[in-house]
Amino acid sequence: MDDVLISVSEGEANTLAMEILKEAGFSQSHAEAITQSIITAQRDECHSHGLYRLISCTRALQTGRIDPAAEPSVDGSTAPAIIRADARHAISLLAFQKAMPLLVERSRSLGMAALAINNCYHFSALWPEAEALAAEGLVAIVMTVSHAWVAPAGGNAPAFGTNPIAFAWPRPGRLPFVFDFATSAIARGELELCRREGRPLPHGVAVDRAGNPTTDPEAAAEGAMLTFGGYKGSALSAMIELMAGPLIGDMTSAASLAYDSGTVPCHGEIILAFDPARFMGNHAPLHLARGEALFDSIVSQGARLPSARRHLARKRNSKGQLRVRSALWQELQDMPNERHE
Amino acid sequence: MDDVLISVSEGEANTLAMEILKEAGFSQSHAEAITQSIITAQRDECHSHGLYRLISCTRALQTGRIDPAAEPSVDGSTAPAIIRADARHAISLLAFQKAMPLLVERSRSLGMAALAINNCYHFSALWPEAEALAAEGLVAIVMTVSHAWVAPAGGNAPAFGTNPIAFAWPRPGRLPFVFDFATSAIARGELELCRREGRPLPHGVAVDRAGNPTTDPEAAAEGAMLTFGGYKGSALSAMIELMAGPLIGDMTSAASLAYDSGTVPCHGEIILAFDPARFMGNHAPLHLARGEALFDSIVSQGARLPSARRHLARKRNSKGQLRVRSALWQELQDMPNERHE
Repeated sequence: MDDVLISVSEGEANTLAMEILKEAGFSQSHAEAITQSIITAQRDECHSHGLYRLISCTRALQTGRIDPAAEPSVDGSTAPAIIRADARHAISLLAFQKAMPLLVERSRSLGMAALAINNCYHFSALWPEAEALAAEGLVAIVMTVSHAWVAPAGGNAPAFGTNPIAFAWPRPGRLPFVFDFATSAIARGELELCRREGRPLPHGVAVDRAGNPTTDPEAAAEGAMLTFGGYKGSALSAMIELMAGPLIGDMTSAASLAYDSGTVPCHGEIILAFDPARFMGNHAPLHLARGEALFDSIVSQGARLPSARRHLARKRNSKGQLRVRSALWQELQDMPNERHE
Repeated sequence: MDDVLISVSEGEANTLAMEILKEAGFSQSHAEAITQSIITAQRDECHSHGLYRLISCTRALQTGRIDPAAEPSVDGSTAPAIIRADARHAISLLAFQKAMPLLVERSRSLGMAALAINNCYHFSALWPEAEALAAEGLVAIVMTVSHAWVAPAGGNAPAFGTNPIAFAWPRPGRLPFVFDFATSAIARGELELCRREGRPLPHGVAVDRAGNPTTDPEAAAEGAMLTFGGYKGSALSAMIELMAGPLIGDMTSAASLAYDSGTVPCHGEIILAFDPARFMGNHAPLHLARGEALFDSIVSQGARLPSARRHLARKRNSKGQLRVRSALWQELQDMPNERHE
């Protein structure tokens, strides 16, 4: 792929994204939620979750499994600290948007609350949702499962998804402290890329069918990917399976893969929100300052805060111009036309 | 140290532990809480948190900083989903015991709740508390900070503690799924042991003062330990710092080290509890079965569930006999006598 980056106005990208999504059959509200997520990622130069996703999103619609227009329902009656959003087999993003105000309200009134999004197709990064809650002054933990591609430590067969976890901590007057990482040692897309290009995988990220370490992407595809961090990462991935799967009454990564083998998996997502103002009370300034001292101690020794690169990109692109891969932009511009012909 | 294991009756170990702790000055209720934690660990052959801790616990008292008799106070009025337990500069365990019933009650009525233990000296493993909540049918996440010994990814100076995280998931009719790991690449005690014995550290667990990887324990002690799992483990450790520190209005690992350089650090602990019955409703059996299918898929491929070894030991030692290192048992038996003389 041509990796030259060109500058595109955000307005233009927005218009094109909406056109592509609506042409593909998404309702106005879904197209808006998806466009917002994609533009947010592109602004941060998070290319893997940016405009590129318009291609997989519209293709996924062609499987006929994703409802492009279902209005999510939000139910706060399960328990005071639990909000359920049923995405009704649509993309997850609109369900989050619709349920977020109630999650914020309950977190503030109770101190903490959980949002369970069920029956959603999920393709987006988790940090935009974590950051949205941090912008409301809340601490957020977001977890979701995916398709079972990852073996547990000591194993040789898929049991876990790439199972990402995101966390955001609000910083007064600044962008939040935020991370978002897959618990797999590499992204599934990276394995697919190596496979297509016949390149070896990095060491320590996959096993073959017999459970032996391998750098051969074909052998890895028949075996399994590994988690990051050995048995600790494996334990963490199991926790994410349980919290974002059975706890919220939704599928595990294995159940999701059995149900729908497409690239956009159907399952659930859990979002935990904590209100520091309720936890810290009057002493909030002192304790937020202790958080800032922690960040200072990281940055002052030359280490980077997670997401620092992304936040720098956001600053760079804050004047309404996005940086987009030239070949991708060309491909996207041809998409609505193809359909018109 | 003589590593021969001898068999000791649980009753005898219990009596000796109580005698040692009370001789050292702990109140009856603190001595009971500490003994219970230590015997529980010894039963699981978790030697690092078993009877061995009687030595460091009583020694730590001699610093004069730990209150051996303070009764913890429990306050459920902060917010509905937040329970605060003030340990009043005593060991953490009694505060957990005293606050747990309210945590269970609130989790069941709200769906989830948090217990913040403040101003506690902390030496124990986290899994006994996670397992106690799982025995009540709850899902639990437990986190605590420690002393700042661990550098962030890309850094060369301590910013994090060894920051353990534990998780427990209830399994009907079986011991829970549970893990408990430090986010540091090795335990602090392991580094100290290598230092004492002049043995090199494993690769990839520490950096020297300049931030270069080192296996020299002296250079590591002047530099910093690393987290497990590179930048992902480092991000997770930062999350634990923030959740178990500033969020609950308590110290970070760096603040704790500045306040008290003893081996038993003073800080806070956060325990999150989730009620699956409230999350899953009538469909609980289906979803718990999905959790069991996940565990089956791990075990059936020859991988181990976290804590499997510990649970096997528990089974082996369930008839009231503990396995204790012979030299340790001798040392402990001499402890009360030393004081009598």
